[in-house]
Amino acid sequence: MAVGPGRKVSIIPIEGIRLAAVKSHIRYPNRLDLVLVEIAEGSTTAGVFTQNAFCAAPVRIARERVKNTASRYFLINTGNANAGTGPEGELAAVACCDGLAEIAQTSSRQVLPFSTGVIGEKLPFEKILVALPMLYEALSADAWQSAAQGILTTDTRPKLASTSFTTANGSQANISGFAKGSGMIRPNMATLLAYVFADAKIETPLLENFLDSAVNNSFNRITVDGDTSTNDCCMLVATGKGSLVITDADSEAARQFQSELNAVFEQLATDLIRDAEGASKFITIEVNEGASEQECLAVAYTVAESPLVKTAFFASDPNWGRILAAIGRAGLSDLDIESVTVALGDTLLVSKGAVDAAYSERAGQSEMDKDAIRVQINLGRGKARTRVWTSDLSSEYVRINADYRS
Amino acid sequence: MAVGPGRKVSIIPIEGIRLAAVKSHIRYPNRLDLVLVEIAEGSTTAGVFTQNAFCAAPVRIARERVKNTASRYFLINTGNANAGTGPEGELAAVACCDGLAEIAQTSSRQVLPFSTGVIGEKLPFEKILVALPMLYEALSADAWQSAAQGILTTDTRPKLASTSFTTANGSQANISGFAKGSGMIRPNMATLLAYVFADAKIETPLLENFLDSAVNNSFNRITVDGDTSTNDCCMLVATGKGSLVITDADSEAARQFQSELNAVFEQLATDLIRDAEGASKFITIEVNEGASEQECLAVAYTVAESPLVKTAFFASDPNWGRILAAIGRAGLSDLDIESVTVALGDTLLVSKGAVDAAYSERAGQSEMDKDAIRVQINLGRGKARTRVWTSDLSSEYVRINADYRS
Repeated sequence: MAVGPGRKVSIIPIEGIRLAAVKSHIRYPNRLDLVLVEIAEGSTTAGVFTQNAFCAAPVRIARERVKNTASRYFLINTGNANAGTGPEGELAAVACCDGLAEIAQTSSRQVLPFSTGVIGEKLPFEKILVALPMLYEALSADAWQSAAQGILTTDTRPKLASTSFTTANGSQANISGFAKGSGMIRPNMATLLAYVFADAKIETPLLENFLDSAVNNSFNRITVDGDTSTNDCCMLVATGKGSLVITDADSEAARQFQSELNAVFEQLATDLIRDAEGASKFITIEVNEGASEQECLAVAYTVAESPLVKTAFFASDPNWGRILAAIGRAGLSDLDIESVTVALGDTLLVSKGAVDAAYSERAGQSEMDKDAIRVQINLGRGKARTRVWTSDLSSEYVRINADYRS
Repeated sequence: MAVGPGRKVSIIPIEGIRLAAVKSHIRYPNRLDLVLVEIAEGSTTAGVFTQNAFCAAPVRIARERVKNTASRYFLINTGNANAGTGPEGELAAVACCDGLAEIAQTSSRQVLPFSTGVIGEKLPFEKILVALPMLYEALSADAWQSAAQGILTTDTRPKLASTSFTTANGSQANISGFAKGSGMIRPNMATLLAYVFADAKIETPLLENFLDSAVNNSFNRITVDGDTSTNDCCMLVATGKGSLVITDADSEAARQFQSELNAVFEQLATDLIRDAEGASKFITIEVNEGASEQECLAVAYTVAESPLVKTAFFASDPNWGRILAAIGRAGLSDLDIESVTVALGDTLLVSKGAVDAAYSERAGQSEMDKDAIRVQINLGRGKARTRVWTSDLSSEYVRINADYRS
């Protein structure tokens, strides 16, 4: 189940990036489950990682390595998260990097490992080691679709996004990326697995700023079930092979790059929600007129993660009472319910803390019947605002997560 | 769906309490949906109420009235929550109380209204007014079962508890009560609807302390879906008709009364979880060795409310990785994962942040197959502890909540 048909995206290759995906039988036979990304020398890399205290072995390694060494390879497996695996898990991840480094004749520290899949089982690293030569041989500038396919777990389709733009002074730049994830999604300063590549030239500190800003408006504003993964990682690479060079964060070129980057991230993040586990609706929750962004986020996430609100969306039921009840328990001090309004699309549901006089069940129903639903909550106590994206809670979600290991 | 068979409880009548339940067709024909409790003059009453900012009209009225006047009647309807109904909703609730006061020849301020059911629809108070004379006529000392039945919504069975005890100096006391609620359950300093009655003589301030303490160890330690109702209320009445008189909070009699009261509350609270919407498992989550009770609660509720953990329980899947991931995102600062252990019943799952060496999938599976599951989490950083009860997340939960209004 997923919301709407998948988009067919044509990806602009990024000079300096080659990719490959192979079948290494990590968990299932006959599926792409091992992906390699090669990054040209001279590139810069920034990363954000899960805040979960139980972060996976590969996360601990990648986070450390990206800080200290220029990254040359991302080695990504699906089918096994290598999380909750203790010191042994770290050894397994390092062994895979060592194997690749030997083949590619580079330092193991320039290889970053990433894993996604079932938590708590030993990584079958021997299978990965066996597959590495074939994987390395397969590297090509065009393998974006199979790389995006090869990192999926319960996702029903790959997520890719790409953009190309020219700055005022004639520099040209391309950005392309892919991501995965459809459950255990409430990133916290990080995301599931997302890899975005640009051919601009950008030094690491500036690249890190671009990444933080893009993540905060995209992956850090989505939630499926409130669960934060042990393996979330989001990587941004600038190869510097194109004509755009950004050195000043306050330049027009920087603003344009950030804006294009945000669009790519937003596309990937919303694609994750559209393909969320069991999702039949794509829901945007906007909270306006808050006293602070923090309280807007508290309201937005409380509504977005309320099982009762989510099951009402699944049923296309304009049960606004559940939305009100969620707002009411979001922990805002001195919330004056008289100043709260709630709208569904263009239909005003609630004003002055009660159902709006002009509201009709028919109008509410017609908004709820849509695939994409916008909930607008105005708190009437300030100027802060935020927006999060989420999905509904369906019996399909339960089926997927009850069956996942079987 | 519910965990295990219902208990058949024989209830000890409480002198000074009479009850009645009738069918008033508020939402469905042919079901008990209107309950009256009569409280003898000279009784004392304490109440705790929902912390939801959008509390229902009857909650606002009952909370105010119980502070200022001796309560003589509880008038409780199911089928309609009278929440999100604005000033009109308050007028409707008051009209019902006025109607009863006229029949019973008492002051309307001595009548406390309670409602449960669908949020946001107008209370059909005319139906209630029509039914009041019949309801008043039906009052009897023995109608506990039908009163417990008449407050239910999606519950599949009534919840009652009763106890009787004698103090060291020969005073005898009885406590009986009933409760409802099976979804939108995460009480916050209050609960769903619960009414408990004792025949002891206890002045109001002391009675309030007994109530707070009992609620904190029972209704405030359960969660089904993390949603806090707009209508939660828990009332405790002491009629003073028995031989036990408690005047000193530090007396042996007070300690005994508190302990017996706690047992009644715990029985009602755990019965709510056993009958939670779609529940197939009764889950106890104990968190020990925390630095503070607050952080133990944060971990306990994060685990108890994780949709991924809950669907794993539904599937009887010993997917301890999901439990670890939930602990890891509970927001504890400087959590040393090496000192965390997790056990399922008597089976150690996790030690030193990874799966325990002696753990076998078979042992985990055998714990998971049980109806009642105990998760024990030791944080290894202090002496605080807590315990919460919850249920699993089943496709039945989704079905119930997607269908609720249809």
